[in-house]
Amino acid sequence: MEHEVLAKLRTAMKAQGFDALVALSQDNVTYTAGFLVPSHATNRFRRTITILAGDRFAAEIVVNVEETLARQQSRFKDIRAYNQFTQDPADVLADALIEAGVAAGRIAIELDYMPAKDYIRLVERLPKATLAECKDLYFDARIIKTDEEVKLLRTVGALTERVMRSVVTSIRPGEREKDVAKRIMDQMLDGGADGVRYQVGSGVRSGITNCKPTDKVIEAGDVVRVEILGEMQNYRSNVTRTAVIGRATDEQKRIWDVLVGARNACQAILKPGLPVPRLWQTYVEACHKGGVEPTLKFLGHGIGQTIHEEPYITETRAMAFQPNITHTMEPLYMIPGRMGFHIEDMYVITPTGHARITGDLFPNDRLIEIA
Amino acid sequence: MEHEVLAKLRTAMKAQGFDALVALSQDNVTYTAGFLVPSHATNRFRRTITILAGDRFAAEIVVNVEETLARQQSRFKDIRAYNQFTQDPADVLADALIEAGVAAGRIAIELDYMPAKDYIRLVERLPKATLAECKDLYFDARIIKTDEEVKLLRTVGALTERVMRSVVTSIRPGEREKDVAKRIMDQMLDGGADGVRYQVGSGVRSGITNCKPTDKVIEAGDVVRVEILGEMQNYRSNVTRTAVIGRATDEQKRIWDVLVGARNACQAILKPGLPVPRLWQTYVEACHKGGVEPTLKFLGHGIGQTIHEEPYITETRAMAFQPNITHTMEPLYMIPGRMGFHIEDMYVITPTGHARITGDLFPNDRLIEIA
Repeated sequence: MEHEVLAKLRTAMKAQGFDALVALSQDNVTYTAGFLVPSHATNRFRRTITILAGDRFAAEIVVNVEETLARQQSRFKDIRAYNQFTQDPADVLADALIEAGVAAGRIAIELDYMPAKDYIRLVERLPKATLAECKDLYFDARIIKTDEEVKLLRTVGALTERVMRSVVTSIRPGEREKDVAKRIMDQMLDGGADGVRYQVGSGVRSGITNCKPTDKVIEAGDVVRVEILGEMQNYRSNVTRTAVIGRATDEQKRIWDVLVGARNACQAILKPGLPVPRLWQTYVEACHKGGVEPTLKFLGHGIGQTIHEEPYITETRAMAFQPNITHTMEPLYMIPGRMGFHIEDMYVITPTGHARITGDLFPNDRLIEIA
Repeated sequence: MEHEVLAKLRTAMKAQGFDALVALSQDNVTYTAGFLVPSHATNRFRRTITILAGDRFAAEIVVNVEETLARQQSRFKDIRAYNQFTQDPADVLADALIEAGVAAGRIAIELDYMPAKDYIRLVERLPKATLAECKDLYFDARIIKTDEEVKLLRTVGALTERVMRSVVTSIRPGEREKDVAKRIMDQMLDGGADGVRYQVGSGVRSGITNCKPTDKVIEAGDVVRVEILGEMQNYRSNVTRTAVIGRATDEQKRIWDVLVGARNACQAILKPGLPVPRLWQTYVEACHKGGVEPTLKFLGHGIGQTIHEEPYITETRAMAFQPNITHTMEPLYMIPGRMGFHIEDMYVITPTGHARITGDLFPNDRLIEIA
């Protein structure tokens, strides 16, 4: 029996009239193979490629350095290792497609990720093939999580919120942003995370969207924005809290209430059947009513094996929520040079509404004040 | 006055008969702009693009979320932000090239990174342009470091070796691989690193090439492989040590002596003028003489703003060492299912020979034994 995910992808491939389905991106390859080649993300000169073709063909191409691990952990039995310095992986791909009998077929392939160089070579090698994008095919396959995937997201989400509570409530004036980051790292790894990333920005640095922790000392009166991105068994979490060291000002409270109000207005309507753009509009309208212009052009994003996946919650995403979609909502408002505010929690759509994966253990309905 | 790096790239562009030079990869964009867009590596749907054209045109395209930071930190004054959900960055690129007057020109562009989709769109928009690879142009520009770059690499290298010594000599049986990772993280950040990655593998896990730390408990008799990859002001370090908990066996010592002997044979000849493939051959011959088959098909790699850059030390890299090339040597031998051995230090080529950036503070000429 072929693995559930491979069977699902193969069915989608055939239903859309394709003879083969080729993935090259880290996220789609990891989803397909159930295994992340460690250097896939960190070394852009190495390719990892999964191929499904016809009724039975299934192979994964990896750089030879990763062959041992791939043979142990990939769902694919047919692992094809290539030498990074003497072989062109586009040729290894072309050879596999010829062997699979689809050299003149319709091949769905990640044109939004495949390097132009590989594309040019593949067109040379398979002049009779039709190459088409497969972004939506993968998008549709991945957007509805299995119950097992939801369970993994709940596990990593719960850990992340627990660590967030512990770390944020223990921030003290006089420590550095990096000290906060170290507690995040320690506690996430202790709690069972396989990996963790974070952002910590204090004072005017809270108003920077992607903010690495520095040696800056946190002072009384600072707004502090802390974002944690966890990883456990290839599934991801993304939780953000904003706190004030000391008493929040009236201006800070007013902004916070607008963002929370917008978030609550969104929670009130979030259920299967709701068009994604409607959620975005609800958010923007609530913000505007409170005099806040959202800094990000999306309210949140799907989350699964990658931090950012579909559905992005924007006005352009023409689809409706369905059960087992998992995503974040992250109202965010930055005043560059002054301060920033950011709420982020994870959600799962249920058959009748939604559940918060995070947000109950360490709520942020009121702006958090650290005494 | 244009920044030294931009002037150098523009000169190389013109010398090779190109009208424009376009970079899209994280490493080449960061090198060009002197600034890493934070989500460039973590979100594959976002593009960051630098453009040099003619005598004066210089612009950087970023996703709008990163606009504020880019305006603060990039070398480019002309920052063009696009909306990820409503605009195609390939169109923004085409518009810029048209504006620069090179729509029918010879454009050097990263075809080994640019997604096929963007390439197809650019060809549609600029049918009279000639698009050519610029991998070697960037390769040549980046491979010889400025003295300032060498200094930054020495700083991050020295910190990394200091932390390695502290962390490895304090390993005790009974602690987990993750505990070792936490000490690495803490001490690197305390020491001034902006970021750090690591590998920790003990027992049979020392024989896995890219090995994430787990909850596995380190036991007496384990071989432990620790690799640290640091980051400071966008420059990188890469140092690896292998240690035995307790007394090394004769077999372990024998393997180690072969690897160190091979490394020493390489050090003995490493200087300007030495062909890169000759260093690789020297390594392989010394290993074979000792009955060891190198696991990796390269002895080391250039290091700078990225961990892995040119020159890869392989038999296929047809160039000679020159002053201010910075690189690693990393003899590595894995016996899957049993154990692995790995030595990695950083080097800089000097006018008359070479200097070790790391390797003197915490030497590994003898296999390290942790009592």
